[in-house]
Amino acid sequence: MHEINETHDVNLRSWIESANAPDTDFPIQNLPFCHFGYETDQEGAAWSAVWSFGVAIGDEILNLVGCSKDGLFDEFEGSLDDVTKLPENLVYFQSETADTLLRFRRKLSELLREEASQELQQKVSRHLHPITNCTFDLPFEIGNYTDFYCSIFHATNVGAMFRPDNPLLPNYKYIPIGYHGRASSIVVSGTEIKRPKGQNRTDQDASPVYIPCKNLDYEMEVGFFVGKSNELGETIPIENAEEHIFGLCLVNDWSARDIQAWEYQPLGPFLAKSFATTVSPFVVTMEALAPFRVPAFERDADDPQPLDYLNGEQNKTHGGFDIKLEVYIQTPKMREENIAPHLLSRSNMKDLYWTIGQMLTHHASNGCNLQTGDLMATGTVSGKGKDERGCLLELTWRGKEPIQLPNGEERRFLEDGDEIIMKGFCEREGFRRIGFGECRGRILPAD
Amino acid sequence: MHEINETHDVNLRSWIESANAPDTDFPIQNLPFCHFGYETDQEGAAWSAVWSFGVAIGDEILNLVGCSKDGLFDEFEGSLDDVTKLPENLVYFQSETADTLLRFRRKLSELLREEASQELQQKVSRHLHPITNCTFDLPFEIGNYTDFYCSIFHATNVGAMFRPDNPLLPNYKYIPIGYHGRASSIVVSGTEIKRPKGQNRTDQDASPVYIPCKNLDYEMEVGFFVGKSNELGETIPIENAEEHIFGLCLVNDWSARDIQAWEYQPLGPFLAKSFATTVSPFVVTMEALAPFRVPAFERDADDPQPLDYLNGEQNKTHGGFDIKLEVYIQTPKMREENIAPHLLSRSNMKDLYWTIGQMLTHHASNGCNLQTGDLMATGTVSGKGKDERGCLLELTWRGKEPIQLPNGEERRFLEDGDEIIMKGFCEREGFRRIGFGECRGRILPAD
Repeated sequence: MHEINETHDVNLRSWIESANAPDTDFPIQNLPFCHFGYETDQEGAAWSAVWSFGVAIGDEILNLVGCSKDGLFDEFEGSLDDVTKLPENLVYFQSETADTLLRFRRKLSELLREEASQELQQKVSRHLHPITNCTFDLPFEIGNYTDFYCSIFHATNVGAMFRPDNPLLPNYKYIPIGYHGRASSIVVSGTEIKRPKGQNRTDQDASPVYIPCKNLDYEMEVGFFVGKSNELGETIPIENAEEHIFGLCLVNDWSARDIQAWEYQPLGPFLAKSFATTVSPFVVTMEALAPFRVPAFERDADDPQPLDYLNGEQNKTHGGFDIKLEVYIQTPKMREENIAPHLLSRSNMKDLYWTIGQMLTHHASNGCNLQTGDLMATGTVSGKGKDERGCLLELTWRGKEPIQLPNGEERRFLEDGDEIIMKGFCEREGFRRIGFGECRGRILPAD
Repeated sequence: MHEINETHDVNLRSWIESANAPDTDFPIQNLPFCHFGYETDQEGAAWSAVWSFGVAIGDEILNLVGCSKDGLFDEFEGSLDDVTKLPENLVYFQSETADTLLRFRRKLSELLREEASQELQQKVSRHLHPITNCTFDLPFEIGNYTDFYCSIFHATNVGAMFRPDNPLLPNYKYIPIGYHGRASSIVVSGTEIKRPKGQNRTDQDASPVYIPCKNLDYEMEVGFFVGKSNELGETIPIENAEEHIFGLCLVNDWSARDIQAWEYQPLGPFLAKSFATTVSPFVVTMEALAPFRVPAFERDADDPQPLDYLNGEQNKTHGGFDIKLEVYIQTPKMREENIAPHLLSRSNMKDLYWTIGQMLTHHASNGCNLQTGDLMATGTVSGKGKDERGCLLELTWRGKEPIQLPNGEERRFLEDGDEIIMKGFCEREGFRRIGFGECRGRILPAD
């Protein structure tokens, strides 16, 4: 379990002033990783990006590759080979031991804190790039992607629409239900999303037709990246699960509900999901999140306890995360009228029935080899309340109760030009606010 | 559509005598690709393999990288950059145009045919390695893996066990049903398969338990590799589908039936499949299979026609493959008693309800980007007859009708030490037999 230490001290300030603003997502206590491109004029007038691996601090990105070439990480040579070879070996860096990753966090914190010498500040400042001048890519190369279904509120709501008498299936309280997703169509925040076409059977008595999706939806999820891998045939005990997790990000699991309803039996969602999945560019590390750990979801007295292989003491007392999640929508008309994005829902990761440690341990419980860079996501994070529902399917109850927008528009599902903006952040008395940045996507019309 | 040409001529003979044996899988008319390791004594006494990219011919593997370095493919420089840079750019080679791949097949055929000059034969023979001295790996690095469910006989049998009144779901005749599989746990033929553990609810009224799988099964499938990719948001018309397919192999989709039954609702199979999937090492190209193309499955008169996007003239007349498939079992006792592997089933790929062109076009019909090296598999290939069922679940009707083995043993599902051997081959009057090699795996006990 990752512990609170001096890098989380609320009084720690950075010599980068924007990192000290109370509402920044990226104070010196955060230090999330990203894969970014920055402007260079090396190749003449045309804008051209150099890609690198960085850490967000206030309104800046610190170029780790530049720092490494400048000798700032020399003390890691040998013990942390891969930082000195960034970014070629980014994947290996992710797979480093918890001890080394913690040392690296301490090093970054030292380089950026107010107390750093003028000489050091000058050296480091050469490797800073304003975020507004940067472009972002997926934080890591994602080998395999797995999506879970771990909000019992989401599962119960969705189940109730399709099976009113029996909303929650009997396996739900025993298994962190999940399925393999499509890795190739994962895109970074800001990528436009083309409305997919697919088979739709609107009339139950007629043949289906191949048309643009009518019930396009988002799903507010939290993702986590695998750090250390396991070999094929090896399982991962629940006590060690978190050693295999590098960090968290936001995920929008775009969903074509009409395609899904017609295709998903008996093998699960396929084309309803694989047209695109958006992730936020910043990976907030397990170290940074240490102050925001909470107990695992408290089960009802008559709920079964998790089976032994999913039941760990630390998982029970600290397996959850207190991460606030928000979803906003902005329609083309709202943009024209200069109306700010409208809040659709607020939910919290602590309301998930299963922890990410349980998801990971379950995934490897058959010997499946998880690999550095794999992405897993929690499934839609919905809470108990009506305003805590993490997708339109739930919020509009399958389109029956449309959302009212501030300019008089309404939405059952997403229309062309709509933009969805997801945010995530942690707050706790006595600690700095830790943010995830944004996960955005705007809908383009179908071909 | 790939056409029959002089490289398929039944009278074509190779100067490699073993390629002319009537029962070889690898006559000069086949030329399947593989990723192989061969022995070298460069590093002293210990066996050490050099990995390369090759083509099987009779009982030998031709090292394409060696040939390339020796200047044998110089004529492709520029037009076929990537053969001259093998194996680093193997993925790009796969993505070459049909025209270039055909030229390359012709070149290989010329190098290996009886009429080649003595000088050429000598030059080429330096790059031959006996198959028995080679070791094999996955033919390509597999990014994403998708498994379909395209045998209507299999779907009907399995459906009948779980839903006797309604065996075939209403979407089956409209959609080539598929799901995302796990790419990381795909292994090459010969890799031992550890029996997975998982949640099993044997007693419907009791809690599930986490124990070694009791109902371990195989599934006889055919796989196909994506060659040319499509961009995210682009679809692939059915007329062009086969341009995106590089070649075929055999696939054993190992299945833990007890885990599957308990976990699969509502999101489909997950840990029941992701512990291992075995593929044969040889990729038989679309060019080699040209003589064995047959019409797509003939639908019943009252079946719906495929929707327009899945309906192509060439797909209808030549979309199928006449590939004979066989599954054998050898138990530990049979090995002790020197009893040859026992034939469990014979089926044929031509009995699939959907063609691989339809599977690929459907997969990309929502704009999902298929990438060079992706693997897709057909799902269990079962025929109409009882002896044409491609998995034990069907053959033993969920364990109710055990298989009788020649030495008096019987099997409901796989036991530790059992080996499954899959074979595939094409035969047609006036053409040489084209084989796929073998896809083997032996079961190890659970931890």
